[in-house]
Amino acid sequence: MAHSERFNLRVREIGREVFELADAAQPSIFQAAWWFEQATRMLDRDDRLRTRAFQFVDCLPSLRDNAVLTRHLAEYLDDKRLDLPKIFRTAVGPGRLLTMREELIGRAARFGATQMAGRFITGYDAPSAIKTIERLRAKGMAFTMDVLGESTTSYSRADRYAEVYHHLIDELAARAASWERIPLIDEDSNGPMPRVNLSIKLTGLDPHFDAIDTDRAIREVSSRLQPLLHRARRAGAFVNIDMESYKHRDLTLELFKRLFLEDDFRDWCEIGIAVQAYLKDGERDLIGLLEWGKQRGTRFTIRLVKGAYWDAETAAAVRNYKDPPVWTRKYQSDACYERMTRIMFQHAHLIRPAFASHNVRSLAVVIATAEELGVSRNEYEVQTLFGMGDPLKTAMVRLGQCVRVYCPYGDLMPGMGYLIRRLLENTSNEGFLKQGFGDRTSHDRLLADPTIVKQPSSPLPARRYRNTDPEEPMATFKNASNTNFATGENRRKMIGAIDYVRGECGRTYPLIINDQTVSTKAWHDSINPSRPREVIGQVAQATTADVSQAIKAARRAFQQWRAVRAADRANLLRKAADRIEMRRFEMAATMILEVGKPWREADADVTEAVDHWRYYADQIQRIESHPRLRNIPGEDNMLAYSPKGVCAVISPFAFPLAILSGMTSAALAAGNTVVMKPARQASVLAAKLVEILGDVGIPPGVVNFVPGPGTTIGQHLVENGDVNLVAFTGSHEVGTGVIRAGAIVRPGQGFIKKMIVEMGGKNPIIVDDDADLDGAVQAVIESAFAFAGQKCSSCSRLIVLDGVYDVLLDRLRQATESVPIGPADAPATMLGPVIDERAQTRVRECIDLARTEGRILVEGKLPPEAQGGYFVPPVVVVDVKPEARIAQEEIFGPVLVVIRASDFDQAIEIANNSRYALTGGLFSRSPAHIDRARREFAVGNLYINRRITGSQVDAQPFGGFKLSGTGVKAGSPDYLLHFMDARCITENTLRSGFVPSEERTEVS
Amino acid sequence: MAHSERFNLRVREIGREVFELADAAQPSIFQAAWWFEQATRMLDRDDRLRTRAFQFVDCLPSLRDNAVLTRHLAEYLDDKRLDLPKIFRTAVGPGRLLTMREELIGRAARFGATQMAGRFITGYDAPSAIKTIERLRAKGMAFTMDVLGESTTSYSRADRYAEVYHHLIDELAARAASWERIPLIDEDSNGPMPRVNLSIKLTGLDPHFDAIDTDRAIREVSSRLQPLLHRARRAGAFVNIDMESYKHRDLTLELFKRLFLEDDFRDWCEIGIAVQAYLKDGERDLIGLLEWGKQRGTRFTIRLVKGAYWDAETAAAVRNYKDPPVWTRKYQSDACYERMTRIMFQHAHLIRPAFASHNVRSLAVVIATAEELGVSRNEYEVQTLFGMGDPLKTAMVRLGQCVRVYCPYGDLMPGMGYLIRRLLENTSNEGFLKQGFGDRTSHDRLLADPTIVKQPSSPLPARRYRNTDPEEPMATFKNASNTNFATGENRRKMIGAIDYVRGECGRTYPLIINDQTVSTKAWHDSINPSRPREVIGQVAQATTADVSQAIKAARRAFQQWRAVRAADRANLLRKAADRIEMRRFEMAATMILEVGKPWREADADVTEAVDHWRYYADQIQRIESHPRLRNIPGEDNMLAYSPKGVCAVISPFAFPLAILSGMTSAALAAGNTVVMKPARQASVLAAKLVEILGDVGIPPGVVNFVPGPGTTIGQHLVENGDVNLVAFTGSHEVGTGVIRAGAIVRPGQGFIKKMIVEMGGKNPIIVDDDADLDGAVQAVIESAFAFAGQKCSSCSRLIVLDGVYDVLLDRLRQATESVPIGPADAPATMLGPVIDERAQTRVRECIDLARTEGRILVEGKLPPEAQGGYFVPPVVVVDVKPEARIAQEEIFGPVLVVIRASDFDQAIEIANNSRYALTGGLFSRSPAHIDRARREFAVGNLYINRRITGSQVDAQPFGGFKLSGTGVKAGSPDYLLHFMDARCITENTLRSGFVPSEERTEVS
Repeated sequence: MAHSERFNLRVREIGREVFELADAAQPSIFQAAWWFEQATRMLDRDDRLRTRAFQFVDCLPSLRDNAVLTRHLAEYLDDKRLDLPKIFRTAVGPGRLLTMREELIGRAARFGATQMAGRFITGYDAPSAIKTIERLRAKGMAFTMDVLGESTTSYSRADRYAEVYHHLIDELAARAASWERIPLIDEDSNGPMPRVNLSIKLTGLDPHFDAIDTDRAIREVSSRLQPLLHRARRAGAFVNIDMESYKHRDLTLELFKRLFLEDDFRDWCEIGIAVQAYLKDGERDLIGLLEWGKQRGTRFTIRLVKGAYWDAETAAAVRNYKDPPVWTRKYQSDACYERMTRIMFQHAHLIRPAFASHNVRSLAVVIATAEELGVSRNEYEVQTLFGMGDPLKTAMVRLGQCVRVYCPYGDLMPGMGYLIRRLLENTSNEGFLKQGFGDRTSHDRLLADPTIVKQPSSPLPARRYRNTDPEEPMATFKNASNTNFATGENRRKMIGAIDYVRGECGRTYPLIINDQTVSTKAWHDSINPSRPREVIGQVAQATTADVSQAIKAARRAFQQWRAVRAADRANLLRKAADRIEMRRFEMAATMILEVGKPWREADADVTEAVDHWRYYADQIQRIESHPRLRNIPGEDNMLAYSPKGVCAVISPFAFPLAILSGMTSAALAAGNTVVMKPARQASVLAAKLVEILGDVGIPPGVVNFVPGPGTTIGQHLVENGDVNLVAFTGSHEVGTGVIRAGAIVRPGQGFIKKMIVEMGGKNPIIVDDDADLDGAVQAVIESAFAFAGQKCSSCSRLIVLDGVYDVLLDRLRQATESVPIGPADAPATMLGPVIDERAQTRVRECIDLARTEGRILVEGKLPPEAQGGYFVPPVVVVDVKPEARIAQEEIFGPVLVVIRASDFDQAIEIANNSRYALTGGLFSRSPAHIDRARREFAVGNLYINRRITGSQVDAQPFGGFKLSGTGVKAGSPDYLLHFMDARCITENTLRSGFVPSEERTEVS
Repeated sequence: MAHSERFNLRVREIGREVFELADAAQPSIFQAAWWFEQATRMLDRDDRLRTRAFQFVDCLPSLRDNAVLTRHLAEYLDDKRLDLPKIFRTAVGPGRLLTMREELIGRAARFGATQMAGRFITGYDAPSAIKTIERLRAKGMAFTMDVLGESTTSYSRADRYAEVYHHLIDELAARAASWERIPLIDEDSNGPMPRVNLSIKLTGLDPHFDAIDTDRAIREVSSRLQPLLHRARRAGAFVNIDMESYKHRDLTLELFKRLFLEDDFRDWCEIGIAVQAYLKDGERDLIGLLEWGKQRGTRFTIRLVKGAYWDAETAAAVRNYKDPPVWTRKYQSDACYERMTRIMFQHAHLIRPAFASHNVRSLAVVIATAEELGVSRNEYEVQTLFGMGDPLKTAMVRLGQCVRVYCPYGDLMPGMGYLIRRLLENTSNEGFLKQGFGDRTSHDRLLADPTIVKQPSSPLPARRYRNTDPEEPMATFKNASNTNFATGENRRKMIGAIDYVRGECGRTYPLIINDQTVSTKAWHDSINPSRPREVIGQVAQATTADVSQAIKAARRAFQQWRAVRAADRANLLRKAADRIEMRRFEMAATMILEVGKPWREADADVTEAVDHWRYYADQIQRIESHPRLRNIPGEDNMLAYSPKGVCAVISPFAFPLAILSGMTSAALAAGNTVVMKPARQASVLAAKLVEILGDVGIPPGVVNFVPGPGTTIGQHLVENGDVNLVAFTGSHEVGTGVIRAGAIVRPGQGFIKKMIVEMGGKNPIIVDDDADLDGAVQAVIESAFAFAGQKCSSCSRLIVLDGVYDVLLDRLRQATESVPIGPADAPATMLGPVIDERAQTRVRECIDLARTEGRILVEGKLPPEAQGGYFVPPVVVVDVKPEARIAQEEIFGPVLVVIRASDFDQAIEIANNSRYALTGGLFSRSPAHIDRARREFAVGNLYINRRITGSQVDAQPFGGFKLSGTGVKAGSPDYLLHFMDARCITENTLRSGFVPSEERTEVS
């Protein structure tokens, strides 16, 4: 008999015993657990119901009173499409809720939720938690205590999270001294084990826990973690570092490894860390830790888990067309878990292995592997979650295993993420809990070797467009990916690129007209706004005569360029995209230095640029090869498109590569030629783009580069009677002038000039009183302050519902104080400088105005590194009237105006009370309010429950209306049509009364 | 045995005998006919090849020299998609043709074509025709002579057509006297029969053979036919009236019946008429003729045919969503033929029956029915076509039947339609000739009863959109149908409606603001331009204060109207469409009287209006219910649209209902409210539309009616800062001013005004040197002169290739002289008055200018009925330089400028040498030139081989670019989007890391 066969036989033996013992411990109908099981079965029958129920549970803690609660219950569950059981329908059915007494409903819902929370959360304060723990000990089980709360939004909240642990250590240690010794859980082969055991999530200790600046994050986390570790060690407690999302994995491992090599902790063995078997890298992570442990020389604990963020990890991966970092099939995770189990036992001399799972097969494998490798029962432990799979826990204890229960502690509100993950696990078809006990699926099948059985399971969610207007040819477009700065390699590349671009400083950039460089008398120094003395490059300044030459060159090139086949034009564009992607670090670095855009923003700008070049390449091929046909026997009708001619592209500094690329690539894809006037402050970057276009073979004269002052040459471009269309993105003041000037048909001008004009915004975010406030604060901070609020999409008005006004403002204040400010080339910087001295002065004036029109809630502190640069601190102004100038005029800086709304009606009214309509956001968990915003929130891009910047090409066509622009949606399938003339071609195919055979035979 | 069984047995007996006799007469490989059969088999294998070959044959006679011919041969046949036989491919394969000597190819092709034509056409002059006839007589066959040429374009050509018959009668009669008597064909039971037999097509005798004015058409045809009949009777010749397209059927029957009841002809029995068994009305037509014959009291001939226009009739029907007038299955026509055969023999005392067919079953039925009813062989005759089914003819003669052969005579060029119909019959799967002899399908199957066997056959061509961008919800839109004025009922309705509207003259029409009538100080008399003293109505004239009130009302109504569900708005629009259709005669009559639009044009205007109301109703529902979605796990993205606000609709008189309806219905469908300023000259009609909108329940304030002078109130509307969008159609001068004024953002105006502006055209038609010149002339006349050239789409430049310049101009001159001019209320009028005195003066000035810039080729004569009205004669100006003012400026009157082009390059260049780009046309049969025009002809609507006016909603989205407009396509699926703001709505559906179940389970 092969080893695997023998092994699987033993696993089955152990598993059957576990099942028998667990079955004996099943709850009866007289226990609450039985009812809970019934409820999850009901949820399990209907996906839509489950979604709604989870969403309701998610927002429940935030619902202040019974009226609000009843409204939400109705909004979530009073839906004909839900297949509610009859008895439930009678109570909550259509209209029914409205007639019930709100108080009754509120009480019932809260009772249910409290019950549910009570199943998973050990306590709200130390005494209640201690009570629970002692009950567990009475059943022979150990614990590890986890303070609910993760992904904090500010330093002060991180401080508070740490404080709770300090307090817990004191309370628990004091109490633990009095506990009776239970050998199974309080001792191992080396002697007594800590009775107090804590699990900590690092994202709770730093609002900017981000690998992009690993040193900073480690410093920041350590500043809170080290005192905690000292206290724990003094108190004889054990500390485990939990593993969270994939993006935090490397940083968490790095921190763990660094910290516990420090002198203070190197010889401490009462520490542990979790590793995740659902990661494809699970084994690598484990081996890395084992090697580290060998080097360190002190024993520590490794907790093997499967991983709890599968939904989010796969969704994020699917969104980015990436392979998920997690296994996409359940059996793969299970198999990986078993492989890692073996590795852990093989290294049991280095670590104390802990196995967290509710899967009987996995646990049976743990036991069988330990037996096989001669690891005794007190050398390892089994871990389970509080409130889940209690019969399994009992069974394991009866088998003589050391069982440690993971015990969440604290308020329901911050713990909601944890709660939902647990509910998900209980109802998921994948979850062993449901299969193992709920379904009573055949034990043997459940105990089978995952590498052989390959249990059926859902595949990876597809990136699927649920679209009723299928544009098949577009299904192939893939957005480019942003750089993952969690990897050291990419961080090093970016640092290298910044150095490289610094090395280029002082280069000169002439005009390019008809592929010829043209030097000029006037030159502009393009400087680094973070360090104004740094001149990034010297850029020639075109005169109106130069611009006229450029227009003529573009006119001449037009006939040739339009004649190039769409597929060939598209391929040139794709080459440009590839070349930009190849040079992406250099382009981003140029942006960082020339316009002060922080790393990640600059990187995303490059990504968007790449997307534009590829997207319009795809689009022009779609348009050309799939024209709209309306053919009937004897008559062919086709809608075709022709390029317009010479396009003036006038672009802003805000998205110096993305918007410039978008307008230019669209013009070129359509078959137009371009005269490009980039933003003055970003003209070195523009010159590099033009260089790339030349490199990939865009023919001479097709793109002409004429940087220079907008007031003279911009105007000249717009007014020129030989320019067929103008693609402009910039301020509202300039933009309306551009529209006005472009509308005049000049003498000899044989066309109406097409004006594609995108302007500013005064973008609001509404925070509803049932919103996820932490999510809202994080999104508002990012939307308002990233790149110093200098995106057309930046948030500048925050409209907060009365019910959450105070608490939100409190958190917002803390979060604003925590915003990382600094030069753009520092990787952790979120808020860099504004673009130039004029902007700095203007924004400062706005802040002065804010002092008179409202009250400054918080004004961030500029760090020393910001001295000398054009920095402005982040400012939050409160008590502002909706009509105040500060609430109406675009600032284009890190100034956020907060307006209080008494109810949702008023919030929408305030949001729409603007001459702009670009982006807007809503944080709400009320389906009715979300629906209403979908209908009435007057903005070009509305974002619900996320930040309001960072639109993606194709998925989120971008552009606004009112005074925000001409309503053209960039990155949409229609965008190119604005750069072309539509032509309907009708051919009478009937000749001498004869219908062409093709048409005769195509009949159905 | 039942009668039908016995009868079918007998039919089979006869049929088998026919087949035997025919087989014996099959051509051998040594005869040309055998080779012809092989060629048709080849064509038959490949639909595309057949199409190309037919199209090549169609244009062949027009190809002047070998170089041109070779080019065409290559263009048609040098195509990789064609599945040419190898041997042919070698000769004509890719590139191959270019290396062959043009002369050789030219000679070969011409030889082939001449051979082919020679098969079907008896002769090019009398001597050659007589030779053929005498060969037929030698084989025992009679003839009927048909002069090729149908659908003439001018009176002089109609005269010539008649002349040929006069000449033929003389020649044939002289010769016939010397022919030996052949009893089988020269005698029947009443004695000798005319040896000379003619078949005449009435469309050859009148360029405006149109039932809309039956009396006029009959007068016109009679003026040429009567002398012919007299001469024939004198010469002892027989005259048959052929039956052509369905639209001419009633008129043909009417003329026949009237004419031969006249004293001169009532007692003449040597006349005949054809009836068509492929018409569903075939039996009814036959019975009507029999009844007429009984009343007349003199014997005459009825020729029973199946019908030769099936392709065109079904294509036209499919295009109009109508039931075709013809049977859609071959077996149905066959069965009808048999029923009609029986009826004819039952009335053999009234008529001499003639049976034209090549179907052995049909002819066997004829013989069997005659036997059964005791009609002797010399009491009826069988007719066949020259050049087709010769073995069948021989067999019938051997059976002792009187066979008459239908003998086309004349030039190939005008006879091409005839030739193509014959080729089609020879290669069609439906055709008996191919099945009977070519395929040697089992005789029994071919002889089976069509009512029992139901031979397989192609169904009706579907109205099928071959579209790669399927917008499913739109497949249901059906264009409304124009009124069929061939029916007396409809003609009477229109006359009644005109009377009714005349009776309303003098009514007053106040403003309508917020559903309230508002009377004003100033009133405008809207007069009839055909008869200026006729005041159609008095219309209140709004002041700017009234307009401000109307804008305010529209603003107030906007919030309610936008909140109406799209489906409900759509249903109101559909009701409006229904109501307009219900009152369509009244609306058309109002248009006829108020703007002088002729009957058919006015009717089509109403149809287009109805289409707009229905189309945008469909479109808004499509847009609302099928938004573009880009949903991925954790993120929903949707593109939605919101109305803009108050829309000013400023419409022209040219399409007083259609364009007004288009702009208004689009604005309303999108959810905007409207302030309507119609053209002054068409404001009574506009008032009626507003009345209809009120009747169907469009809420108060949603449409406000403010007629008045454009210079004051039009400007006020455009400049008003409370008007969100302007939909304007009018002249280029006003339009550019509107664009300029609309581009200024007024104080307090919180949006960029959307300008949807459609302006004029200087629309060219190119006539290539291989064009179907008759088709071109007809289309040019219609495009240039219908409604006195006052459509934005009217043709005003004719660009003619050198090679056909003289001949085309000659025909154009004749056709122009034949244009029916008169008051618009006269049904036959094509060219009515221009809109008003100012227009009359302006057009006259243009004509004066034309005299200096070119030469007047022809100037139509105004008839006495035109006195007093604002008439201008149709004018054709030749020898004009492309840059001349007359060739560059829009005239908006019946003035056509002709420019000569030396080659196609130059023609395209001249066509594009214009500030306008609205409509354009090309007449060509060169695939390469057609392709080139498709790519390079810079117009918004290009029409190939048809007239350039009369676009259909949805099939032909309408609108131009350059100075013709803002490039918005009316009647397109995108039109509504211009009336709305696009909003992208992004919802993060991931809550607490949980992806909604719907998205998780929708994975593939």
